[in-house]
Amino acid sequence: MSNTIGVIGLGVMGSNLALNMANKGEQVAVYNYTRDLTDQLVERSQGQAIHPYFEIQDFVQSLETPRKIFLMVTAGKPIDSVIQSLMPVLEAGDIIMDGGNSHYEDTERRYEELKSKGIGFLGIGISGGEVGALKGPSIMPGGDKEVYEKAAPILTKIAAQADNSPCCVYIGPKGSGHFVKMVHNWIEYADMQLITEAYTFLKDRLNLSVHEIADIFDTWNQGELNSYLIQITADILRKKDELTGLPLIHVILDKVGQKGTGKWTSIQAINNGIPSSIITESLFARYLSSLKEERLTAESILADPDMNKQPLDKELWIEYVRQALYMGKVCAYTQGFTQYKMTSELYGWDLPLMDIALIFRGGCIIRAEFLNIISETYQKQPKLANLLLSPYFAKKAQDYQSGLRKVLCEGINAGISFPCLSASLTYYDSYRTGTSNASLLQAQRDYFGAHTYERNDREGIFHTEW
Amino acid sequence: MSNTIGVIGLGVMGSNLALNMANKGEQVAVYNYTRDLTDQLVERSQGQAIHPYFEIQDFVQSLETPRKIFLMVTAGKPIDSVIQSLMPVLEAGDIIMDGGNSHYEDTERRYEELKSKGIGFLGIGISGGEVGALKGPSIMPGGDKEVYEKAAPILTKIAAQADNSPCCVYIGPKGSGHFVKMVHNWIEYADMQLITEAYTFLKDRLNLSVHEIADIFDTWNQGELNSYLIQITADILRKKDELTGLPLIHVILDKVGQKGTGKWTSIQAINNGIPSSIITESLFARYLSSLKEERLTAESILADPDMNKQPLDKELWIEYVRQALYMGKVCAYTQGFTQYKMTSELYGWDLPLMDIALIFRGGCIIRAEFLNIISETYQKQPKLANLLLSPYFAKKAQDYQSGLRKVLCEGINAGISFPCLSASLTYYDSYRTGTSNASLLQAQRDYFGAHTYERNDREGIFHTEW
Repeated sequence: MSNTIGVIGLGVMGSNLALNMANKGEQVAVYNYTRDLTDQLVERSQGQAIHPYFEIQDFVQSLETPRKIFLMVTAGKPIDSVIQSLMPVLEAGDIIMDGGNSHYEDTERRYEELKSKGIGFLGIGISGGEVGALKGPSIMPGGDKEVYEKAAPILTKIAAQADNSPCCVYIGPKGSGHFVKMVHNWIEYADMQLITEAYTFLKDRLNLSVHEIADIFDTWNQGELNSYLIQITADILRKKDELTGLPLIHVILDKVGQKGTGKWTSIQAINNGIPSSIITESLFARYLSSLKEERLTAESILADPDMNKQPLDKELWIEYVRQALYMGKVCAYTQGFTQYKMTSELYGWDLPLMDIALIFRGGCIIRAEFLNIISETYQKQPKLANLLLSPYFAKKAQDYQSGLRKVLCEGINAGISFPCLSASLTYYDSYRTGTSNASLLQAQRDYFGAHTYERNDREGIFHTEW
Repeated sequence: MSNTIGVIGLGVMGSNLALNMANKGEQVAVYNYTRDLTDQLVERSQGQAIHPYFEIQDFVQSLETPRKIFLMVTAGKPIDSVIQSLMPVLEAGDIIMDGGNSHYEDTERRYEELKSKGIGFLGIGISGGEVGALKGPSIMPGGDKEVYEKAAPILTKIAAQADNSPCCVYIGPKGSGHFVKMVHNWIEYADMQLITEAYTFLKDRLNLSVHEIADIFDTWNQGELNSYLIQITADILRKKDELTGLPLIHVILDKVGQKGTGKWTSIQAINNGIPSSIITESLFARYLSSLKEERLTAESILADPDMNKQPLDKELWIEYVRQALYMGKVCAYTQGFTQYKMTSELYGWDLPLMDIALIFRGGCIIRAEFLNIISETYQKQPKLANLLLSPYFAKKAQDYQSGLRKVLCEGINAGISFPCLSASLTYYDSYRTGTSNASLLQAQRDYFGAHTYERNDREGIFHTEW
């Protein structure tokens, strides 16, 4: 009768979170709807404070009130059915936390339903994979602030720590925690694709070996590109295949999967008028990668550009690629944080952009030095419309844009595609075009559909009889 | 008691369609839920066979059985409520046709509901704007074939005619007609954006006047770029503003609207793994255009590239721009028709790609010579995986890619963005890359999330302990 927290759903993520909690001194009740995973966890727990239950009622009754129950269950219907099975045994004031990858709209629905019954509900984004869950993930809780406060002592304890502060901060109301996690995953897609494009230039245009490229990534990881994804890329490139002795990267098939959840971010952006081109291009790049057989056919049919590939100065071009990657990263994170900002305004969430950048510094997949700078930027300018407009990033763009432009032109002439780098520059140049030719689109729309237009020299709505 | 067809919803589109039907010899019953639009139409109809009714029951009873009722009502709930009001007075075998911009999923739902009550339901895509509705639109009917056959005599009569055949053909089951219309609208967005980008190069890099550019568009309209959108662009560029005497295009504000329906196409593509980057970039370009005030701020903060803009040979570069535009158009239509093909396979619709291209030749906004070639291509190769793989378009790509590459590099160096042209080349080069570096993405996913990968040298699913 004295467990301090309960965990339901004992897959890898749930088990590791439970162990993480026990390591931090909590008394953890655990339950899984099949017994096998519970037994496995108990075996792993080796005398830590993990207490298994095999009836949901016993599990619930073992918890201190107000009860705190963490769900680590597959997103979708399973969550609803677990909640349903909990309802008869819970009491007003108890708290359910959903730590899975739920769609934030589902979270909003569950929040409303549970609130009407007096049960607190937090939708909690968690990033960091298996290792993060065990050693400290990045945690993004959304829901009522006073409900969060009750769970905060445990959540901040189990979170990753960066610069001695926990990577867990109250995000905002209702589904905002899961929303922030959703966009985080999408930034991750873009970051991975940008790194892949940098690798492509080094490998296919500069003709460097994977070992040379691994060294370059290590060097980059010492500087302003320092990040988990850059570091693991160097590791990956050094890994030998045990079957063939070749670099493992050379035998992996170039077809990329994706978990359904990722595309939600693009769809949310499209539905709400938010420019999200870089992140969306990274998705389309994955879709194209899966058309492997068609691509092999196309390669034999569609012409290369006419080009004598001149040898390029290695040192110089490695630096151009570094600049291009950094610039692409700035643009991609700018789009991601713009999606936070525009959505926050749309839904009245008041998302703490500075804190979001802070909790991304540790535990999660996109953790990077870079996020310190984003956080400092929002600390100085909390109302900043767009990260590119900050003095720091505007200066970086000034310095690095020529690297990006060079890499892209070289790719265009060599017939090598860089979808996300290309979308990054397009975004940069479109965004800084104060007066564009979009007026022609409005004229066309008015011509064939009488959609009307505004003028740049006086107020009002106009239509022309063309 | 002898009307051959009924039209409900007498806005501009509905009124014009009713007049079109009357002109073709039909006896047309018309009804609107407010009387004013009915009166206006009767006044316009000038003795044509337009018969107004003010009670829905009288309207229905005036029709020959099986009754054919055309709805031209705002998409969404209004359609459902009109259908509901019709149900008590209809008989089994009667036919309802929805000619509005309904989402194809709504159409599928209505189709099922009405079928269970013995009522035939056709979801009919109609393109051509007001003028098309009156003089002959492009018509895309979906639903049961035998239901279509009963409505076909009227539909083919009121459709646009191209090369003596009607721009109306049976599309396929259930929501497929509205689906084809939905993607059509999206191809239209991309085509408009591509034309705007060609205009941008001519105006902002070659410094040509709007009059010179109008002449160029007229010339292009004589050749393989011949299309309605090119032709109206020339008209637009020649139009003088009555208030200022300036070219009208110079006083139109560069903020572009969009009707909600358009974004459905991108979302359907994203949900179903279909590469749709060009069309989606045209959407993001509109979203960016609407951030006018931010763009003005950004212009003053974000640096231009360092570049001495060298003067370019005018004739030569006009031809490069023409090639770039054509190549962009090929890629955009390829993505659109790929969306038809992949969706058709996914839903088992068996869409007639050749016929779809044929009915787009007349009446609709994207009507163009170009569609004859697409149609001929599918006639020769009905199972073609991708338009770019046909001999005709592969040859065009070979010849024109250098124009596109030149225009893009010049834009990159000058700091002018070409989102859709850029996405076109990225698509072309990605698609013809038989072996890509997407293997790195799979390795990263396996590294941090144990997502597994395939190999290129043996069957199976693999995971590495990195």
